[in-house]
Amino acid sequence: MITRMSELFVRTLRDDPADAEVPSHRWLVRAGYIRRAAPGIYTWLPLGYRVLRNVERIVREEMDAIGAQEVHFPALLPREPYEATGRWTEYGPSLFRLKDRKGGDYLLGPTHEEMFALLVKDLYSSYKDLPLSLYQIQTKYRDEARPRAGILRGREFIMKDSYSFDIDDAGLQKSYDLHRGAYIKIFQRLGLEVVIVAAMSGAMGGSASEEFLAVAENGEDTFVRSPGGYAANVEAVRTNPPEPVPFDGAPTAHVEDTPDTPTIESLVSVANQRVPRADRPWQASDTLKNVVVMVKGADGTRTPLAIGIPGDRDVDLKRLAAQLEPAEPEPFTEDDFRAHPRLVKGYIGPAALGESSASKIRYLVDPRVAEGTRWVTGANEPGKHVFDLVAGRDFTPDGTIEAADIREGDPAPDGSGPLQLARGMEMGHVFQLGRKYSEALGLKVLDSNGKLVTVTMGSYGVGVSRAVAAVAEATCDDKGLSWPRQIAPFQVHIVAAGKDEPILLAAQDLARKLDDAGIPVLLDDRKASPGVKFADAEILGMPTVVVVGRSLAEGTIELRDRKSGQRDNIAVDEVFDRLLDAVRGTDSAA
Amino acid sequence: MITRMSELFVRTLRDDPADAEVPSHRWLVRAGYIRRAAPGIYTWLPLGYRVLRNVERIVREEMDAIGAQEVHFPALLPREPYEATGRWTEYGPSLFRLKDRKGGDYLLGPTHEEMFALLVKDLYSSYKDLPLSLYQIQTKYRDEARPRAGILRGREFIMKDSYSFDIDDAGLQKSYDLHRGAYIKIFQRLGLEVVIVAAMSGAMGGSASEEFLAVAENGEDTFVRSPGGYAANVEAVRTNPPEPVPFDGAPTAHVEDTPDTPTIESLVSVANQRVPRADRPWQASDTLKNVVVMVKGADGTRTPLAIGIPGDRDVDLKRLAAQLEPAEPEPFTEDDFRAHPRLVKGYIGPAALGESSASKIRYLVDPRVAEGTRWVTGANEPGKHVFDLVAGRDFTPDGTIEAADIREGDPAPDGSGPLQLARGMEMGHVFQLGRKYSEALGLKVLDSNGKLVTVTMGSYGVGVSRAVAAVAEATCDDKGLSWPRQIAPFQVHIVAAGKDEPILLAAQDLARKLDDAGIPVLLDDRKASPGVKFADAEILGMPTVVVVGRSLAEGTIELRDRKSGQRDNIAVDEVFDRLLDAVRGTDSAA
Repeated sequence: MITRMSELFVRTLRDDPADAEVPSHRWLVRAGYIRRAAPGIYTWLPLGYRVLRNVERIVREEMDAIGAQEVHFPALLPREPYEATGRWTEYGPSLFRLKDRKGGDYLLGPTHEEMFALLVKDLYSSYKDLPLSLYQIQTKYRDEARPRAGILRGREFIMKDSYSFDIDDAGLQKSYDLHRGAYIKIFQRLGLEVVIVAAMSGAMGGSASEEFLAVAENGEDTFVRSPGGYAANVEAVRTNPPEPVPFDGAPTAHVEDTPDTPTIESLVSVANQRVPRADRPWQASDTLKNVVVMVKGADGTRTPLAIGIPGDRDVDLKRLAAQLEPAEPEPFTEDDFRAHPRLVKGYIGPAALGESSASKIRYLVDPRVAEGTRWVTGANEPGKHVFDLVAGRDFTPDGTIEAADIREGDPAPDGSGPLQLARGMEMGHVFQLGRKYSEALGLKVLDSNGKLVTVTMGSYGVGVSRAVAAVAEATCDDKGLSWPRQIAPFQVHIVAAGKDEPILLAAQDLARKLDDAGIPVLLDDRKASPGVKFADAEILGMPTVVVVGRSLAEGTIELRDRKSGQRDNIAVDEVFDRLLDAVRGTDSAA
Repeated sequence: MITRMSELFVRTLRDDPADAEVPSHRWLVRAGYIRRAAPGIYTWLPLGYRVLRNVERIVREEMDAIGAQEVHFPALLPREPYEATGRWTEYGPSLFRLKDRKGGDYLLGPTHEEMFALLVKDLYSSYKDLPLSLYQIQTKYRDEARPRAGILRGREFIMKDSYSFDIDDAGLQKSYDLHRGAYIKIFQRLGLEVVIVAAMSGAMGGSASEEFLAVAENGEDTFVRSPGGYAANVEAVRTNPPEPVPFDGAPTAHVEDTPDTPTIESLVSVANQRVPRADRPWQASDTLKNVVVMVKGADGTRTPLAIGIPGDRDVDLKRLAAQLEPAEPEPFTEDDFRAHPRLVKGYIGPAALGESSASKIRYLVDPRVAEGTRWVTGANEPGKHVFDLVAGRDFTPDGTIEAADIREGDPAPDGSGPLQLARGMEMGHVFQLGRKYSEALGLKVLDSNGKLVTVTMGSYGVGVSRAVAAVAEATCDDKGLSWPRQIAPFQVHIVAAGKDEPILLAAQDLARKLDDAGIPVLLDDRKASPGVKFADAEILGMPTVVVVGRSLAEGTIELRDRKSGQRDNIAVDEVFDRLLDAVRGTDSAA
C-alpha cells in the first residue's frame, strides 16, 4: 500500500517543543513521530510507530536466534511477589503503586524478575528442563523523578526483557554470553556505536553486570575507557587502594589554629602560611575532607553517614547513590547539624566520626585513605585542624566507599592506562542475577542426583523505545531526522515537485512500482509548494528522496541521499533499478 | 526455525484449573497457552502469544485495508481529559486510578476517546484534513467487578480501538460503514460466527451503536433475533407501546380487600375468588407490579426509583442497568423501606409514587402500561389492591423505561416476527459517538466556508485477546484445543512416535523441509511415549498432526486431521506435498 502525504496523519512543526533538551527529542516531535501525552509519557504517531516496530523486529529476530522464547506478561502485577523479594519497598517512589476495587495492592511492572521466576517455578521441576531463556517486548513503568529528553527517559516505555534459568554458574555464564552476543548484533544492526562497560547491579541485585552504552554527547551516563581496553560505567569504577604506608617514624598528630578555613582552598592557603611544610607546599590532596550526608532508606528512615575523601576530590553524587542503593543520599541540612552538635561545620574530623565514636555516625573513607597515610583534617573545633593524623594509627574508619569523583587521567584499576571520560546512553543491561530471586521465591529443580537445587538466573534488558531516540540522536542533523535503512519508516520518499499532470502521474507510477516490489514508499502528493515538500522530506528523514519535477521534461528524475546530501539526475527508465540497488544496499550512494 | 517440544516452554496439565468456568479457559490453561498472574490478569506463554499475534495480524491487515492509520497511545493517562468528558467519575470503580510521585492523578486507559480527540485537535485544523481514521492495538484496563472465564473477561486485556473523525454526519456514516465492513471481514477470517445486533451506547455515549456477538452457549450476552432479520442485544430491545385504549366507559377504580397477597401469584388467586371477573379469570398480565430499587450515582448518591411492569413479567436487571448507566441499580433494603414509610411492601401502588406524589419517588412504567390500559395494583395498604385503575385517568407515571424481561416469542419491534433468544460473546462494538467528546474537548476544524465546526466522531473496538478465547471456545472439543489454520500457532505438529533412529531422522527431515518452505512446524522430539505425545498433540490443537512411527518401515506416515479426526496413511515421498496442500487449503481433508 502506498502511503500518501495527503492522507498521512503527520504535521511537521516549525518550532521546537518547549521542553526539548536534546536533538532527538526536538526532531522526533517536530517531525510528527511522537507527541507528549503527559510528563515522560508519549504517544507514537504513525511514522514513529513504524520505526518502533522495525526496532522490535530486529530485537525479536536476534532473541529468537539464540533460542529465547517469547512470552508476554501483564504490566499490572500483584504486590506479593515483589514483597517477597523486597522490591515492593526497595523501589521506593519510582514504583507506580495502585489499589484495585477490592483494596488489593498492585504495581505497574518496572521489570519482571519475580514474575518470570514464579512462572518457571510453576511449570518446571527438573534440571532436564534447563537451560531456558524467555523474553518479552513489553510496556514498562517507572515513576522517574526527572523524566527527560522525550522517549530517552520516559515513565512509560517499551523494553525487551529476558530472563535465563540455569542449573549452575557455568550454565548462567553461557546464557549470559549468548545474550551479550545477541545484544552486540542488535546494536550493530541498529547502527549504534555501543561500548560495553562494567556496571553496578544496583537494586537488581546479583553479581556481575554490564551495560551497553551508545556513545552520545547528550548521554546521561558517564563512562570511562582506557587505552588498554578497560571500560566501565563511572559508578562502577573501583579505585585500587595504595599499599599500606609504614608510619613508625611519623610525627605525632598536632592540632593547629587555622582560622577561617571552612573550605579546602582556604585551609591549604592558611596551612602554607601558618604551618609550612619543609619539603613542599601543602596541597589539597594532603587534606582529608569529611562530608556528611543523610541516607534515606526505602522505608523512609534518615541515617547520617560521613564520607572521608582526599581534599582534591569531590563526592560524586551518582557514584555515592549507586553505592547506597536502594537507599538514597540527601543533603545534610542546617537542622541536621543542629541535631548533631558534635559536628562542627567546616571543621569535621575523624575523632568525631565512626560507629564507636560518641556521635555513632558511620564513617566511610575513600580507598586512597589507606593505612599509614597522613592527613590534614578537621579538629572538630571552629578554626582548628589537626596535622599528621595517620590512618590506622590515629583513627580507624568503619570501612571504605567509592564516592570520590573519577577524573580524566586517573589510572584504570586493571593497570591498562589512564582513563578517558565519555558520555553515553544506556541501551542495554545484562545481569548475572545468580540466586537472589530464585531463593526468595523458592525456584528449585531436581538435579541429576534427585536433589533440590536453587536455579540461577540472569536478566537482560534492551530499551526498545529508547533505541528509537538513540538512533535518531546519532543520525539526525541540523535539517531533521535521517534514518538508517534498517529502521526507516519508509525507504523512499517521492516528492511530486510541481502541479503538472505528468509530474504527478510519473510520481504515482514510480510509487506503485516500488510498492509492488515490496519497498515501503511515501508519496508526497500534496498541493503544497516544492519548497515546503523538500523541507518536510528533510525533517522526516527517509534515506532516499526522489524528486519528480521540472527535469522530467528532459527525461530525468533527481535522487537525493538524505544523509550525504548527494543529488543525482537519473534517466527516468533507470530510476527504478537505481532505487532497488539503493534499498538493497548494492549502491550506498543513491 | 523448527520449534522442538523438547525445548518449548510448555507443560500440558492433567487437571482443570479450579476457577475454569468455560471450556476455552480450561483448555487454554491446560494446554499451556496462558497462565493466571492475578484475578483477571493473564500471562501469555509462547503458544498463546503466537495465536495472539496471528489475531493481531489479521486485525491490522483489515484496518490498514480501510485506510485507518496505526498509532500507539500510552496506557497510563492523565486525569484531566477524562475529567473534561465526565468519564473520570462516570466510570466508577471500573477505572484503575493511581497517583504519581508528585501526587498527580492518573488512570489506566479503558478506552482512549479523549486522547485521540485531543491528538487530532493538536495536529489538525481544517476540513481538508478529514476524514481520518486512527487505530491502535493496545493493552487496556478495566477493574471488572467479576473478571471471569480467563481471558474472556479480564482486567488487563488487548483491544484494537479505532476512532474516526469527520466533518459531518454523512462522513461519520461512511467511516462507520467502513469499520463495520472491516469487522465483518475480521471475524470471517477468524472463523467466528458473528451476529451484528443493535446495542446500547452506555457510558460511551453517542447515538447509534452495534455489537458484534460471537454466537456461543457460554456467552455473557443475551441477544434476540427474529425470522425477519431483526437482531439486538437484549439490553437494546425496544418494546412498541400499544395504541392508547379509549376508557370512556371504564368503571371507576375500586379498592378491594385482598388479604395476604404480597405476590402476583397470590393476588391473582385471591382476586379470582373474591372479585371474579365476568368474561374470563384474572391473569398475572392484568396486574401492575411496582418494584422499587435504589439508583446509585457515579458520585455515590442513592436515589429511589419505582418501576411499574405487567405482573407477568420480571424486571431484567441487566436491561435496567443499561438504562441507568453510568448509575447502577441496587436492591431496596429493609432500611430503605423504613426510611420511606409510604411504601407498603407487597402492596405498593401508583398513588404513592411519582415525582409529584407525596413520596416524590420517580415512577417509570413499562411501555405496555399505555394510556387507557386498566390494572389491578397495590392500594398502598396491607391486604388491599385497587381494581380498574386506568393509566392516564387514575394515574400518570413520570415516563417509561425498558426494564421488563424479554421473552422468547415476544414480537420484534420492527414487526419482523417473534423473537428468539440466544447467547453470545461481545467481540466488537461500533459507536457513532457524534459530538460528545469533540464538544467536551473543543475539537473543531474550519469548514469550507472558514467557519469553525465541531468534528463528529466514531469509535470502534475489537477484543483481540478475547478473540483468542472466542475462537478456542468455538473450536475446542472434549480432547483439547483445535485451531483453525488462520491463527494456529503451528500448522503442522510432527510426532516422532518411537525411539528408533530412523523414525527420529525421518521426523526431523520432514520438519526441516516444512520449515524451509516457510511452514510453521512443531516437532515432538521428546523421549516420552507415543501415547503421551498423541494426547499432548490433541490438547495443543495444531490443525494437522503427522505421526512418524512404526509404519515408516512399510514406507508410510500417518496424517491426522485434528478437527475431523480423520487418519490417512500416506506414502513417505508424498507426505510433504500432501501437507503443503493441506496448509495452503487445496485439500481440507489432510
